[in-house]
Amino acid sequence: MIEAVADEGKSRTMSGVERLLRPTSVAIVGASDKPGALGNSVLTNLERNRFDGTIYPINPKREKIGEHPCLASVDDLPDGVDVAILAIPRPAVVDTVRALAKRGVGAAVIFSAGFAEGGESGREEQRQIAKIANEAGMLIEGPNCLGCVNYLDGIPLTFVETDARAPAGPAIGIVSQSGAMAAVLGTVLDSRDLGLSFSISTGNEAASGVEDYVEFLVDDPATSVIAMIVEQFRKPARFIAAARKAREAGKTIVLLHPGKSSAARESAATHTGAMAGDYQLMRTKVANAGVIFAETLEELGDITELVSRSPGVLAAGTVVLGESGAFKALTLDFCEDIGLPLPPVDDADAPALREALPEFVGVSNPLDLTAQGLVDPDMYARTLTALFDDDRFGSIVVGLIQTDKRTCDIKFPPVLRALREGRPDKPVIVAGLDEGARVPGEYISELRALGSAYFPSTERALRALARLAEHAKRAEVAVPARPTPLSGLADWQGVVPEYAAKQLLAPLGIAFPEGRFARSEDEAVEAARAIGGKVVMKAQSPALSHKSDAGGVALKLNGDEAIRAAWRKMHDDVARYDASIRLDGVLIEAMGEPGIELIVGARNDPEWGPVLLAGFGGVTAEILKDVRLLPPELDEAAVAAELRRLKSAKLFDGFRGAAPVDMDAAARLIVSLGRIMMAEPRLSEVDLNPVVLRPDGCVALDALLLVGE
Amino acid sequence: MIEAVADEGKSRTMSGVERLLRPTSVAIVGASDKPGALGNSVLTNLERNRFDGTIYPINPKREKIGEHPCLASVDDLPDGVDVAILAIPRPAVVDTVRALAKRGVGAAVIFSAGFAEGGESGREEQRQIAKIANEAGMLIEGPNCLGCVNYLDGIPLTFVETDARAPAGPAIGIVSQSGAMAAVLGTVLDSRDLGLSFSISTGNEAASGVEDYVEFLVDDPATSVIAMIVEQFRKPARFIAAARKAREAGKTIVLLHPGKSSAARESAATHTGAMAGDYQLMRTKVANAGVIFAETLEELGDITELVSRSPGVLAAGTVVLGESGAFKALTLDFCEDIGLPLPPVDDADAPALREALPEFVGVSNPLDLTAQGLVDPDMYARTLTALFDDDRFGSIVVGLIQTDKRTCDIKFPPVLRALREGRPDKPVIVAGLDEGARVPGEYISELRALGSAYFPSTERALRALARLAEHAKRAEVAVPARPTPLSGLADWQGVVPEYAAKQLLAPLGIAFPEGRFARSEDEAVEAARAIGGKVVMKAQSPALSHKSDAGGVALKLNGDEAIRAAWRKMHDDVARYDASIRLDGVLIEAMGEPGIELIVGARNDPEWGPVLLAGFGGVTAEILKDVRLLPPELDEAAVAAELRRLKSAKLFDGFRGAAPVDMDAAARLIVSLGRIMMAEPRLSEVDLNPVVLRPDGCVALDALLLVGE
Repeated sequence: MIEAVADEGKSRTMSGVERLLRPTSVAIVGASDKPGALGNSVLTNLERNRFDGTIYPINPKREKIGEHPCLASVDDLPDGVDVAILAIPRPAVVDTVRALAKRGVGAAVIFSAGFAEGGESGREEQRQIAKIANEAGMLIEGPNCLGCVNYLDGIPLTFVETDARAPAGPAIGIVSQSGAMAAVLGTVLDSRDLGLSFSISTGNEAASGVEDYVEFLVDDPATSVIAMIVEQFRKPARFIAAARKAREAGKTIVLLHPGKSSAARESAATHTGAMAGDYQLMRTKVANAGVIFAETLEELGDITELVSRSPGVLAAGTVVLGESGAFKALTLDFCEDIGLPLPPVDDADAPALREALPEFVGVSNPLDLTAQGLVDPDMYARTLTALFDDDRFGSIVVGLIQTDKRTCDIKFPPVLRALREGRPDKPVIVAGLDEGARVPGEYISELRALGSAYFPSTERALRALARLAEHAKRAEVAVPARPTPLSGLADWQGVVPEYAAKQLLAPLGIAFPEGRFARSEDEAVEAARAIGGKVVMKAQSPALSHKSDAGGVALKLNGDEAIRAAWRKMHDDVARYDASIRLDGVLIEAMGEPGIELIVGARNDPEWGPVLLAGFGGVTAEILKDVRLLPPELDEAAVAAELRRLKSAKLFDGFRGAAPVDMDAAARLIVSLGRIMMAEPRLSEVDLNPVVLRPDGCVALDALLLVGE
Repeated sequence: MIEAVADEGKSRTMSGVERLLRPTSVAIVGASDKPGALGNSVLTNLERNRFDGTIYPINPKREKIGEHPCLASVDDLPDGVDVAILAIPRPAVVDTVRALAKRGVGAAVIFSAGFAEGGESGREEQRQIAKIANEAGMLIEGPNCLGCVNYLDGIPLTFVETDARAPAGPAIGIVSQSGAMAAVLGTVLDSRDLGLSFSISTGNEAASGVEDYVEFLVDDPATSVIAMIVEQFRKPARFIAAARKAREAGKTIVLLHPGKSSAARESAATHTGAMAGDYQLMRTKVANAGVIFAETLEELGDITELVSRSPGVLAAGTVVLGESGAFKALTLDFCEDIGLPLPPVDDADAPALREALPEFVGVSNPLDLTAQGLVDPDMYARTLTALFDDDRFGSIVVGLIQTDKRTCDIKFPPVLRALREGRPDKPVIVAGLDEGARVPGEYISELRALGSAYFPSTERALRALARLAEHAKRAEVAVPARPTPLSGLADWQGVVPEYAAKQLLAPLGIAFPEGRFARSEDEAVEAARAIGGKVVMKAQSPALSHKSDAGGVALKLNGDEAIRAAWRKMHDDVARYDASIRLDGVLIEAMGEPGIELIVGARNDPEWGPVLLAGFGGVTAEILKDVRLLPPELDEAAVAAELRRLKSAKLFDGFRGAAPVDMDAAARLIVSLGRIMMAEPRLSEVDLNPVVLRPDGCVALDALLLVGE
C-alpha cells in the first residue's frame, strides 16, 4: 500500500529540509549516558564532530548527560528548535511527535521501525505522524531510517559512528530509502577517496521523501553528483522535475532501484509497505529525465566514482590499453557482450599513436602493448599522450599487469607523468588485470588526485563505461517535442470505436488504409466501389471490443454481392453474439498488403504520465517480451534508435531477401502518437495493433482509443 | 593457420613434460651476469629458490657466472641434460634447438617471439623447430612463452621473478597459452592465499601444447584443480579425453577461452597464428567433458577459488544472508538475472532457522537479518549452524555490512565460530556489501583457513555460484549413450535423397509422415490412394537439393487427377529448372497437420567430432539465433533441459491457448539422432527441417543426409 503523503507546499518543505540538514539546535529525545544506547550514540557522534550548535538532551531520569543539562520532557524545549532526534521505542513515538509539533520543532528524525511495514496498527500510527507533521509544518525523516549526515558542516544526526569530514572539492550527496544502503554506499565511496556533501536515509517516508532531498541537493552548490538507492518513488512527478533540473544544472544522478524481478517487487512491498509499481515504466521515465541507472551495488559505486571524477556527459568511444594478446581478445568479447563501443583504429589512421609505439606493436583497439613496457616504460606515457588528443575516444582504460611493487614502480610513474602533464579532459581509468596484486597505495592516491580512477579490474571499468555510454546516447536527444492536441476528442468518453478513432488520428500523422464508414448496406456497397479491389468490412460499435470473436470482421470482399452478403451475415452474427449491441455501421477498408507487423500503443499512467510501447507483433512480443517502452518526448531519431534495440530488429532490414522496410515511417508514427499523448491527458489508452510496415511506409490496420473522465 | 604439430607418442611426451617440470639439470643458453637480462633473471630465479640440481650457464664470453662455471657452447653440454632455457634472440633459436637435440636434451624452453605469429619466415622457423624436436624426441615449451614454474619443488624456469613456495595442501595447476595471462592468474590466486602446483605457459605450441600439460596435471597427485586460459585447442580429441579423465579423478578444470565474438576470434588468429575455430562447437564439447567455463578474468579467479576450497560438485540451491531489505530485493533481481536458483523457505518449513532468529525476522531466502546482529551477534552463528544442516541449500553466501574494524569485530567472530564448530560440507562465502571497507586481514585469513572464501562483493560470489550451479546441472548427465549404427548407410555417398534418407532413419526412432516412394505416375496414384486424404508430392533426386525452387514440391493434392497433373507438371518444371536432372521418382506423403516447427540437425566436425543442433524454425532461428548446439551423448532429460533453455521455450507450453506440445518426443528424436551420429563418422551432415511438434508427438517433414568418404 502506498501511504498517503500530503504534498506540502514546496517552500515550506525546503525550509524543513534546510533546518534538518543544517541545524543550529538539536534535541535528543531519549538521550542517554549508557554507551551503546541509541540516545548515547547520537550525542557522542555530535560531540565527536564538534557540533557547535545547541544540544538539548531529553531524559526525565537525568539531570545532566556529559556537560549538557537534561530536559525532563519535550514540553520543556524552547520554541523553534531545528531538529529533534527520537531515540525512543516505537510506542512512544506518536505522542512525542505531537509534543514536538507543539514546540514548533522544524524537523524530527525517527529511527524506530514497525510502522507502515509492520501491519495495520503501525500503518495507522504512521498516518497519524504524517498528519501531525503536515498540520504543524514539521518535517519527518523516517520512521525506520538511519538519520542523516551533513558532511560539509560536520553534523551527523545518526547513531552510526560517523567521521563527518568535509569534502575537498565537489562532492556526492547520498539519498537512500534504506538506511543500511546509505551507510554501505558511504563506506564504498569513502574507500575510494570520494568526498560526500550529505547522506540522507528516508526510511518509510511518513512526511518527507527522496524527492524533497533531491530537490535540496540539486540546489546545493557543494553537491555535483547524487547517488540514490530507491525502492519506490512516492512522488514521481516531483522526482522527474528535480531530475530534469539536475541535468540542466550539470549535476548527475546515479540510481540503483531494485524491482526488475517480480520477486524483488514483492519483497520491497513487504519490507517498506510500498506498492509494487510498474518497474519498466518507472525506468523509462526516470532514464529519460537524465538519471543513470546502476544495476548492482558494484556498479553504483563504480558509476558514481566515474561521474564524480569526470563531470559532464561522457563522449562515446572507449580505447583499451593492455599488455597481452589474450587480454585483447577477452576485452573484445566482453565489450561486445556489454555493448561498449570500441572504435577501431589502425596504423594508417592514427599517426600520433603509430609514432608512440615500437614497430612490432600494431595500432589497434584494444591496443596490445605487449611486455615492451617493462623495457621501455616511457611507451605508456607516449601512448597515453597520443590518445588524450584523439577525439575518436571519449574514455581510456589502461589495463596493467601489476604483479608486484617492483613492476608497479616501472609502470605507474610514466602513466602518472602523462596524466600530470597532459591533464586529459576525458576519463582515464587505470585497472589491474591481476586483481589482488600489491599495488603501492601512493600510486592509487596520486591517480585520484590527478582526476583519474583506479579500478580493481578492467571488467568493472568497462561495465561502468558501458552504462555511461548508453546514457550519453540518450542525453543527445534534447529537442523538446511539441504536444499535438487531438481535436474532436472532447466529444468522446470511454471506448472510441475504430472508425471514429481513425478519423481523429488520421490528420495527425498516423496512416490508416483507405477506408469509409457506412451506415447502411447501400452505403457499404458504394464505399467498396469507391475504394476498389478487395476490401475488408469491420463492424463498428463502442460496445464491441472483440470484433473478431463476434463475427464482426470479413476479409477479402470483392464485388457488390459479396459486400451485401457480408453486411447481412455480420449483423446476424453480432446479434447472435450479443443481442444488446447495436452497430453504428461498418468500416470498409482497402485490404492491406502483407508486411512486418508491429504493435504500437500508449497509455497514461496516473503517477508517471504518458508512455508509449512498441514491438514486433505475434510470438516475438508475447513470448520474448520483445517490446520497448518509450517516453512520449522522443524525436524520430531516438525512436528509431529504440526500435533498433528490439531483439528482432534485423527484421527491419528485410528478412529472407525481402526489401528493408521503412523504419523511419514507423518512428514518425510513434512520434506523432507521443505528441498526442503529451497533449491529451484524458487519453488513457491507445492501441494501434497491428501497424504493418512495408518498404514504402507503414499503415495502422486497427485503432482503439480509451478516453477517461 | 594451424601449425602442424606431430602427435608424438604419448609416453614420450609425458616423459618430456616430466623432465621439463621436474628437472635435475638445467642449461641456460644466453646466461648473463647483467641484472635485467633474461639470461640473468632465469639464473637468479633458480638460485633464489635454491634449485638443488645442476645448472649449466652457456655464454662464450664468460668463464663463470656467479659460482657457476660457464660453457662456451651448447655442444659442450653433457649428454641428456633435462632442460635447456633459450634466453637468446630469435635469429639464433633454430640452430640452438638443433644443437640441443644433438646433446639429447629432454626439453627446451623458448621465450622469443616472432615465430608463427610473425609472418611467413617465422612460421617456417617454427616448423623447423617442431621438426627437429619431434625427430629428436625433445619437448619444446614455446616459442613466445614465459616458461614454467614447479611450485611443489620450488623450480622456476622463467625470467619472471618468482617465489615458488610449495602449497600447503591440494593445489591449483595453471596452464595458459598466453604467458602474460599465466602470470596474471598466478598473482590473482596467490593474493587469495591459494596454493599452486605448477604454472605452464605454452605460447605458440611448436612441439607441446596445453593438452600435454593437462594430461600431466591430471595424473599429478598434488594438483586438484586446473585453471586454464586457452585461445585455441590444437588437439581437441586429446584435450577432451584428458578433461574426462580429470572429471573421473575428481579434479576440476576451469577454463577461460576468448572467442565468443568474431572480433576476438580474428584477434586471436592474428596474434597467435592460430585459426579462428568454431567457438560454440568447442564450448559445447568442452563443457560436456566436465570443464567449467569462466566468462571473464574475474570469474576465472572466483570460480577457481570456489572449486579449490570446496572440492566436488556443488549441490544446487544457494541461500543468501543479508542485513537489509533493499539488499534482499537487489539480490532477488540479480539472481534472476544470472539464473542462480534461491530455493524459497519460510517460517513454516524451516523450524531450525525459525528458532535461530528473533521473532520479527521472518524466514526467507534471501534472509534479511536486519541490523539485529549488532545487538545479538550470536544470531549469525545460530543462523549459519541451522543452514549447515539444511539440505535444500548447497551453498551459503553471507553478505555483511562491514563498515569498519569495530563492526567487523562484532560480526566476524560469530561467523568464524560457526564455521569452526560446524565444519560445513558446503561452500560458505563471506562477502562485503560495502566493498572497500577496512576489514582486518586476520578475519579473512581465518575464513580461508577454515575452508571458506572471502569475496569483495556479493555479486561476485553469486555470479561464480551461478556458473557452478549450471555446471552441476550438466554434471548430473552421466549415463553413457549407446551408439546406433545406420544399417544401409554403407551403400551411400554424397547427398542421400529424401526418400532414401527417410527409409534409413525411420527404423531408428525418427518419425516421418506416412509416405511412399513412387517411380511412375501410376505408382504415385496408387501411393496417394493408399495414404488417403490430402497428400504432398516431392521430387526425388540426389542432384536436386533445392526442391521448392525447382517446382519439385506440390501440396494438398487430393484425388487421382490432381496426382497425375502434379506428376506431369513437376517433371516439366524440374526439366526446365535443370535439364540434366533425372528424377529417381517422387515421394508421396500424408499432409502434416500444423504444429510448432523445430529445426534439428547434426554435423561431424573433423576436429571435434559430432554435434547436434536444435532450435525453433523460421524467424526465431534466423534472426534471434535461438538455437542450441548439443553433444550427441546427451540423454532425453538433458536434451529436454537444453530445449527448455531456448529463448522461446514458452512455445512448448502451448501458445495462445493451444495445448502443450510433446517436447519429450522431440527430445527422443534428438537423442536418436545423436546415437546415430556417434556410430557413423561418415555422416558429415544431417538436416531434419522442419520437425513439426504437436501435442501427440513429433514428425520430421524433411530429411537430408550428406555422407562423406
